[in-house]
Amino acid sequence: MPAGRRWKVIRGMMWAIARRQVAFGCSSAWSLRRILPASVASALQGYVALTTANEASGCRENYSWGSCAAFHSVGRQLHSHRSSVVEEQLDPFSLVENELYILASRLRSMVVAEVPKLASAAEYFFKMGVEGKRFRPTVLLLMATALNVPIPEPASVGVGDAIATELRIRQQRIAEITEMIHVASLLHDDVLDDADTRRGIGSLNFVMGNKLAVLAGDFLLSRACVALASLKNTEVVTLLATVVEHLVTGETMQMTTTSEQRCSMEYYLQKTYCKTASLISNSCKAIALLAGQTAEVSVLAYEYGKNLGLAYQLIDDVLDFTGTTTTLGKGSLSDIRHGIVTAPILYAMEEFPQLREVVDRGFDNPADVELALDYLGRSRGIHRTRELAAKHASLASAAINSLPNNDDEDVQKSRRALVDLTHRVITRTK
Amino acid sequence: MPAGRRWKVIRGMMWAIARRQVAFGCSSAWSLRRILPASVASALQGYVALTTANEASGCRENYSWGSCAAFHSVGRQLHSHRSSVVEEQLDPFSLVENELYILASRLRSMVVAEVPKLASAAEYFFKMGVEGKRFRPTVLLLMATALNVPIPEPASVGVGDAIATELRIRQQRIAEITEMIHVASLLHDDVLDDADTRRGIGSLNFVMGNKLAVLAGDFLLSRACVALASLKNTEVVTLLATVVEHLVTGETMQMTTTSEQRCSMEYYLQKTYCKTASLISNSCKAIALLAGQTAEVSVLAYEYGKNLGLAYQLIDDVLDFTGTTTTLGKGSLSDIRHGIVTAPILYAMEEFPQLREVVDRGFDNPADVELALDYLGRSRGIHRTRELAAKHASLASAAINSLPNNDDEDVQKSRRALVDLTHRVITRTK
Repeated sequence: MPAGRRWKVIRGMMWAIARRQVAFGCSSAWSLRRILPASVASALQGYVALTTANEASGCRENYSWGSCAAFHSVGRQLHSHRSSVVEEQLDPFSLVENELYILASRLRSMVVAEVPKLASAAEYFFKMGVEGKRFRPTVLLLMATALNVPIPEPASVGVGDAIATELRIRQQRIAEITEMIHVASLLHDDVLDDADTRRGIGSLNFVMGNKLAVLAGDFLLSRACVALASLKNTEVVTLLATVVEHLVTGETMQMTTTSEQRCSMEYYLQKTYCKTASLISNSCKAIALLAGQTAEVSVLAYEYGKNLGLAYQLIDDVLDFTGTTTTLGKGSLSDIRHGIVTAPILYAMEEFPQLREVVDRGFDNPADVELALDYLGRSRGIHRTRELAAKHASLASAAINSLPNNDDEDVQKSRRALVDLTHRVITRTK
Repeated sequence: MPAGRRWKVIRGMMWAIARRQVAFGCSSAWSLRRILPASVASALQGYVALTTANEASGCRENYSWGSCAAFHSVGRQLHSHRSSVVEEQLDPFSLVENELYILASRLRSMVVAEVPKLASAAEYFFKMGVEGKRFRPTVLLLMATALNVPIPEPASVGVGDAIATELRIRQQRIAEITEMIHVASLLHDDVLDDADTRRGIGSLNFVMGNKLAVLAGDFLLSRACVALASLKNTEVVTLLATVVEHLVTGETMQMTTTSEQRCSMEYYLQKTYCKTASLISNSCKAIALLAGQTAEVSVLAYEYGKNLGLAYQLIDDVLDFTGTTTTLGKGSLSDIRHGIVTAPILYAMEEFPQLREVVDRGFDNPADVELALDYLGRSRGIHRTRELAAKHASLASAAINSLPNNDDEDVQKSRRALVDLTHRVITRTK
């Protein structure tokens, strides 16, 4: 059997076994060896063991984003059939559904703390049902497959597979660490913003107080750092530690603007990179580095993440004005009400310079919010923001299409899924 | 010249050069090469370069703790003379004075941020005059020398020295990272405690607000993580990341106690280890690991740090009751007033079980504080806490005295200084 095909079969078995083990709370080497040859069981054993820690039973999550009917279907039609564990689907989220399931279990086991209150706080956003869209892990797992140069035929049966499995596990760690850093930043951001809701439930600071939210964020960062260290790749540790610095920088940039900065598109984009795009771009790069890819390929992975992240945030900024409709003012308007100026207003200001005065007053007065919306409605601000998002989505697609040719079916599927995600990001309505 | 002696001479020159360069804002390889042979200049160049970044001029700091006249002099007499940069003093703080100076400069350059507000917040406690006692860096630099197995005679002149210099620089990084983690935890703790002062000035949260204090703490942690990664030693990264977890755990243990836990000496000591002793013990261990010491020596370094840290905190808990006097109630009483029960009260409770009721009421009522002080005064609580601190100080000394024999003069001096510190810790009055 060719190495690529064998890897697919093994991976299918791996998911099936891992899920069975999670379901029955059983992770011993013995149980693996009962149903697999010793060499394969050994390669998978490490993988499965941790997924079942602290997890006596499991159930499937719903992908609020991936399965959302509101998505506009763009590009190719996505066919879904589940005839076997080996045959995979093209829908981006479904393609990595099994892996996301294991990842969610592992995350819950990684954030277990001894002190009960800290444990409740740290696991708060990793509990089933409130894991969010899992956009980042999806992108990262797809990127891992998209960059998967076929493994050379192994010298002896099983060695190549073991290497591939090991690499995949390390790439999953990146997805887990990225999610921990993301949630840590959400916890601290919610404290900073006095937020009261998150992912449809009370924010942690609202439910358990600011102190525990700060501590839980620190705890997740320390666990992420321990997990990072275990990868034994200095460049990757540095990349992701720098992301934390960017997250802090972005938040501070937003909190402490001068009038000049608040009205600068360059400043806005730099802040957006720090707050949103740095995490996904640098973790995409980490996926490439772990796979031993060339500097060129690592840069393409980074460029994909950066542009996807920027496109995502630009659309977020549009939706804050429009909500699920196309009508201005139907969104939550939370940015502008907090005095945060985003791309639509910045573009509107180019057409109506008098809007600057309104912006400079801040938006403490609701009448100023209305006035800004009026200017925005008469401008091409929303349209131009969507155009900019589309441009970044297109750059993200271009990065994927510039990857070295690879005919492997899985690699092709994952690349198409990554391109598909760029369309979904700019056409989403929530 | 023997390798040990040559290293001393080089180190003396290194300080002199580094300080001169800091004073004149000059760090080029050229300026080093003008006054040193090429091989030595090259070895020092990397060392000095970063110390001068963002530092146009420097001046000497005061060591509030090391030079404090209030210290009881115990053990040997400490003679201080500054005849040359090569001749070193036995006073623990003076022994590493030059290195602390460079370390302080480097720390200021390591926490520079692009965003002005973040920069001001991050450097707040690294500014000259408010660096605190620099107890941890002093211990770590002394430990580095105390473990310094003489370098084998180099194959060619200069190679051994370059290796020694490189190792010392890496150990200094540990001292810097430890200080960054320490300050990050102070920033977050002050937010959690609504503290208004720290190191004799306004706490950062008080001066710049909770939000910036949280962000500055995160920023310092991310910079510490980047610096850690650059050491390329996975075990060390894991050790120090685990310390952050311990700091969070200790803080949460203190915040969320049951009545049973609040009255348990075991719980108190575990919390004290997490909050105070973990950082110094694990960073001492990191110093040993970087030097390639055996597991046994690393454990001794860890044991020294752990016992010194516990002794330090036990005395802190006594001083919270007595202040600079020997009279109860003359301290700030900040622990008990915040409902935090420490060793003196725990011991008093063993003699007067009825004190438990008072403790269980919390200490919202000032009359309960007075009542607890009355019980404490009639008990051996303070005495037994001092005894426990002395026991831990003695264990710390024993760890140093168990290190493999080494006749090198510097090694001997540093070991004596570390033992001396254990006396200072338990006899200090502030």
